[in-house]
Parts: sequence; C-alpha cells; structure tokens
Amino acid sequence: MSETVRTSLVIAYLGGGLSGWQVQAGRRTVQGELQRALERVCGRSIQVTAAGRTDAGVHAIGQVAHCDVPAGIPARGLHAALNGVLPADVRVLRARRAAGTFHARRDATAKRYRYRIAWGMTLEPWEALRTWEVPYRLDVPAMSRAASALVGTHDFTALALSGHSGTGRRGCSRTVHGAILRRHGRRVSIIVAGDGFLRGMVRRIAGALVEVGRGAQPPTWIAALLVDPATRPTAPTAPAFGLTLERVFY
Amino acid sequence: MSETVRTSLVIAYLGGGLSGWQVQAGRRTVQGELQRALERVCGRSIQVTAAGRTDAGVHAIGQVAHCDVPAGIPARGLHAALNGVLPADVRVLRARRAAGTFHARRDATAKRYRYRIAWGMTLEPWEALRTWEVPYRLDVPAMSRAASALVGTHDFTALALSGHSGTGRRGCSRTVHGAILRRHGRRVSIIVAGDGFLRGMVRRIAGALVEVGRGAQPPTWIAALLVDPATRPTAPTAPAFGLTLERVFY
Repeated sequence: MSETVRTSLVIAYLGGGLSGWQVQAGRRTVQGELQRALERVCGRSIQVTAAGRTDAGVHAIGQVAHCDVPAGIPARGLHAALNGVLPADVRVLRARRAAGTFHARRDATAKRYRYRIAWGMTLEPWEALRTWEVPYRLDVPAMSRAASALVGTHDFTALALSGHSGTGRRGCSRTVHGAILRRHGRRVSIIVAGDGFLRGMVRRIAGALVEVGRGAQPPTWIAALLVDPATRPTAPTAPAFGLTLERVFY
Repeated sequence: MSETVRTSLVIAYLGGGLSGWQVQAGRRTVQGELQRALERVCGRSIQVTAAGRTDAGVHAIGQVAHCDVPAGIPARGLHAALNGVLPADVRVLRARRAAGTFHARRDATAKRYRYRIAWGMTLEPWEALRTWEVPYRLDVPAMSRAASALVGTHDFTALALSGHSGTGRRGCSRTVHGAILRRHGRRVSIIVAGDGFLRGMVRRIAGALVEVGRGAQPPTWIAALLVDPATRPTAPTAPAFGLTLERVFY
C-alpha cells in the first residue's frame, strides 16, 4: 500500500435531504457522499471519520473530519476537486494536511451548535429549511435567563433523548461553556457550546427553552430539571432541521 | 357554489427538489404543492395560475400567482396558514385580495431574473444550491459589455432553447429592459429584466456570457447572435439551479 497523508476536512451540509452523517445502505448520508467523492478523486476507497455523527436532518457549517489520502494528491486543491464531484448540499470548505496522529473525534475539545427558531413571520425557503417556525410569540429574555442555568458541569439526562444512558467514564455529565440567545426581530438563535453533547441534547434544550419562551414553564424550570435529572421535561424535542453544528474546537 | 375572492400570491421556492411549476403526476411541483396546501386550508380543490411556468430546478423569490379562495377565508393570515402546511422549500411570502379580473400571467408586464455564477471559491451549501460554479476565472467587464447588447427589442431565437419557434403574435421577439452584472469577489450575478422571455432564454444568455467571460468569445459575439438569429451559440445552456425568478411586474 502506498504512502498516505492524514488530512483534515471542514465540511458544510444542508441536512434536509440527508440521512445524517453515518453511511447507511440505500440512503444518502454525509459520510457516504464524502467517501464516494474521495474515491472518485483519489482512485481508491477512503474512510472518513467525523468529529461527531449528526442525526438525520441536522445541518453543519463547520463539521470536521479526517481521512488518509494518497501522498500524491496535494491537499491544496483537494477541496475544490471534491466539491466538483460532490452534490450541492455537501461542501468541503477546507482540506488541510494534518499531523499523522490527528483524530477528528478523539481530539475534539468542544463543539458549538446553533438552533434557529422564528415566529409570526414569513421566512424565505432557504431560511425555512434551517429554522423551526413556532406558532408562539417567544419571551426571549425569559429564555436567556433559563439558558444561563445550562452553563457548567451537569448531569444532562433530563435533556437527552429518552432512553439515553450516557457512555464511558463521564456518563451523562457534560460541561456547557456557554448558552446564549441572539435575537433579530422575530428570529432567535440558541447558541450552545460545550465539551460534548448527549444524543438529542441541543434539540431537547431548544424544545425546553421554547416552553419557557411561550410561558408554559417558568425560567427556573431548566435549572430544576438539571438538579433532579430523573425529571423529564414535558417539552417536545425540537425538530432536527433547526439545528446546525457550527464549529468543532481542537 | 359559494362566493370566492380572487387572491394574488407572492411565492418563493428552492427548485432543487421540485420538477418545476406545473402539476405532473407522481412528481413534486410548485403548483402541486400549492394546490394541495390550498385544499387543506380551504377545504376544497383550488386551481393556481402562475405568472410564468418555471422549469425544473429553477428557483423563485417573487413568483406571482392567482387563485380563487372561498370568501370566508381571510386573505390576512392565509399565507401563514399555507406556510403551516407547505413543505419548507415552497413559501408563500404574501397573499392579498386582488381585483376579480386579476390574472397573474396575462397582466404581467415584465419579469426580472437573476443568474448566479461563482468561480475559484468554496460556496456554502445554501449558496451552492443556487449558484453555477464554473472552472473559469471570468472577465466581468467583458461580460457587461456583451450583456449591454441584449437591451432593446430583438429576435431572441439564437438565445432560446433549441427548437423554440416562439408563440403568438410576437414570435421570438422580446424586449429586454436591462441586462447588468453585479460582482462580489468571485461571485457574479447576471440580472435580466424584460417584457417576456423565451423558454431557456436566461439560461442560454448566462451560458453565452460565460463564453465571453472566459475569453472563448469576444464581447461583440452576443450582438452578432442577435443580428443573425439563425446563428446558434455554441455556448452550453447554463444549468437550471443557477436561475432565480426575482420579480414579476404588473
């Protein structure tokens, strides 16, 4: 086998037409599209490993992945070659030569997600594809107060997808570095950064914050859920199409 | 049959997942999605007529259509009700009560289209869905000079889809009110407004202007094509996904 070069990729995708990150037979997935494009460009089968496996419908603007490409393929120009054969909803924003030991998932120290919500307004389709439109006027200051309780190290069982039991040493404990809301008129983004996220956690947080925003729960509710992890929120899990993985930190 | 109210709709759509405007059995189309949504909201089958039938893959931000809705349905709120049941890639931006004689196609006096092109850069997927990425550095001033020849009343046979023979009284004669280029870095938009467009005309214009922009043809080439309508450009027809119907004038 010829020499290969460990390469990091920064990837953006619109999740609406994709069944998430991971390869699945008979379905379009981000990993599947990337591996097919790499095979066309590099002439051999190449495995791609992401920082995190996003669920079906979730978007990314800064997903990171690594792969090993033949040494003869220059990293410079690789992203353009890949974009030339990728479908329009998956784009490689950057391809760089990385240290031989670089691992997109294991080396990630933090991630940042954005969840988009809008109410009482008409969105253009390119916004609607990435935004949860709710039929409530939202009290954003109340949501901001509620969100501040997320910051710190907590057991996030109550805000993970039902049945989640955590994995590895840290179980369901995660550290949220920041949870802020940005409002523009009747659009609001929930921006959450942390060292790791349980499955469905950001969507569950968005669903719970909408309960606060529409007045169905007090702002103190989020803090109460974290104090008693056995309590499950009655909030709906916000839909996948509102969620974007914005950045992975190393 | 109960009383109805003539209603005008302004519609936006992302064409990538749609087989154009017109209803076709077994395919998603803009008209089909709108008529299904109107039936759900109004409780009866309602026909929708557009200003122009866009082809498969073409987008719109200001398509106009008319329909007759039951008098009991308030125009105010109709667009939100429709958006509540429409898929995210088709959005009604506005619904208004119109004169009983209003006809979206027959009353239209002009239309404006935008064709997006980019080169040598990496687009985010939501841009890539609406932009033709070409492998050439484009000479935008040369394209602008060439485009200025489009303005005025001409026989546009050479710039229509092959086999187009024109329809009605005016044949293949159309008046272009303006044809300008807007550049932002390595992105350029071709903006064309006119009293009407032959099938494929804007895509053919974009394909021809790219030939000029990459230096394969001189800027005078467009004028020459219009003087001798029997000449067919050797330019490729630009792909549908770069084209957006921006506005219909009345």
